Amino acid sequence: MDSKQETIERIIDRALAQRIMQALSVGGSENRAANASCVQAKTEVLQVPVGISNRHVHLSRTDMDTLFGPGSALRRKKAMKQPGQFAAEETVTLKGPKGALSKVRVLGPLRPETQVEISIADGFVLGIKPPLRMSGQLDDTPGVEIIGPQGSVKTTQGVIAAMRHIHMPVETAAQFGLRNGEVVDVEVGGERGGVLRQVVVRATGDSVTEMHVDVEEANAFSLQNDELVRICGY
Amino acid sequence: MDSKQETIERIIDRALAQRIMQALSVGGSENRAANASCVQAKTEVLQVPVGISNRHVHLSRTDMDTLFGPGSALRRKKAMKQPGQFAAEETVTLKGPKGALSKVRVLGPLRPETQVEISIADGFVLGIKPPLRMSGQLDDTPGVEIIGPQGSVKTTQGVIAAMRHIHMPVETAAQFGLRNGEVVDVEVGGERGGVLRQVVVRATGDSVTEMHVDVEEANAFSLQNDELVRICGY
Repeated sequence: MDSKQETIERIIDRALAQRIMQALSVGGSENRAANASCVQAKTEVLQVPVGISNRHVHLSRTDMDTLFGPGSALRRKKAMKQPGQFAAEETVTLKGPKGALSKVRVLGPLRPETQVEISIADGFVLGIKPPLRMSGQLDDTPGVEIIGPQGSVKTTQGVIAAMRHIHMPVETAAQFGLRNGEVVDVEVGGERGGVLRQVVVRATGDSVTEMHVDVEEANAFSLQNDELVRICGY
Repeated sequence: MDSKQETIERIIDRALAQRIMQALSVGGSENRAANASCVQAKTEVLQVPVGISNRHVHLSRTDMDTLFGPGSALRRKKAMKQPGQFAAEETVTLKGPKGALSKVRVLGPLRPETQVEISIADGFVLGIKPPLRMSGQLDDTPGVEIIGPQGSVKTTQGVIAAMRHIHMPVETAAQFGLRNGEVVDVEVGGERGGVLRQVVVRATGDSVTEMHVDVEEANAFSLQNDELVRICGY
């Protein structure tokens, strides 16, 4: 319910804004409103290219042995932007209580712990509700059956939906007054524009600046790979 | 599209609103950060329940005849929130150049034109890129093959991804100073919180207040059906 006070406030708001606009006589340029809060925050903002993560799996040495054979190695298919990371030729099938997802890409290199990153929609297909986590934070996460060409493994944990995050070198973070682990807002323009809040900064020495979102987040904002978004609101 | 002028206007709007708020000493401080811009704008905001739309089809009389038999009628499975709208028992298969989606729900009642609403991810499966449109705006949209139990039809247009929008009665719109067709920002709290911009207000006489988003938008913001979000930034 709008109170009289709020009605007055809004009328004042608009009238004042209009008057200032008239005074400024600013013509219609092509700038998009989606950038407003960034523009407010500072004149120069950190622009970050987007990297869209489809569902994928990181494997431990033990699970690699089970799924692809003892001593097997991941074959590099394509380098990822983050140094040393790559998409492997190997894929697996994920099987949950409700359904399965096939041809799920394995990412290399091997890790100390197996981790399965899926979207919320993937979770519906599998019948598993993935908690929102940063990579590596696997306590109290559900497991899933992983099926490879040489065997299968039923993990007891490791299924997550990745929290959106921004990789960047420590120097870039310092330059913009950001700290590792800090949570920022990211402004996206366009026909499905908006603001992503709760975006975690991951500032480490050898990182390449890139915001990771999953396919659903990308589609919800009509984001493409390598499209630039702006950090603001920190 | 917002012009630079409108951007400036909004910035001034918010700054002035804040100042007036301070002067009047209105406003609690317990609200979450995610609500900041709403709180800034006014003390009381319009809260709107979310309705999540999965892929669905609206059929014309002619296409209904082809797919389900001459003179066939949709059988009501479940009422939708908007008066007169319902999910039908009937489902169809969509077939595109790359793949197919089965068990796609038909929504009733029948419409003058067949319309197919899918997500961007659905578009990848079908091999069809759905343009972002408001319901009924079908010029220059792609077609798809629709397969029913009695026949199939190849439409030449009608495939869209729905623009997020808010249904509301005209009186509610008037109460909050909103106009039909106006574009607003919507603030969402929570672990995947943020702001959805470019949300279109659809104020018509018999509407029930509800924001429609697709499954990807819902999952990107961790939104559930009937969860409340806040209109702000208009």
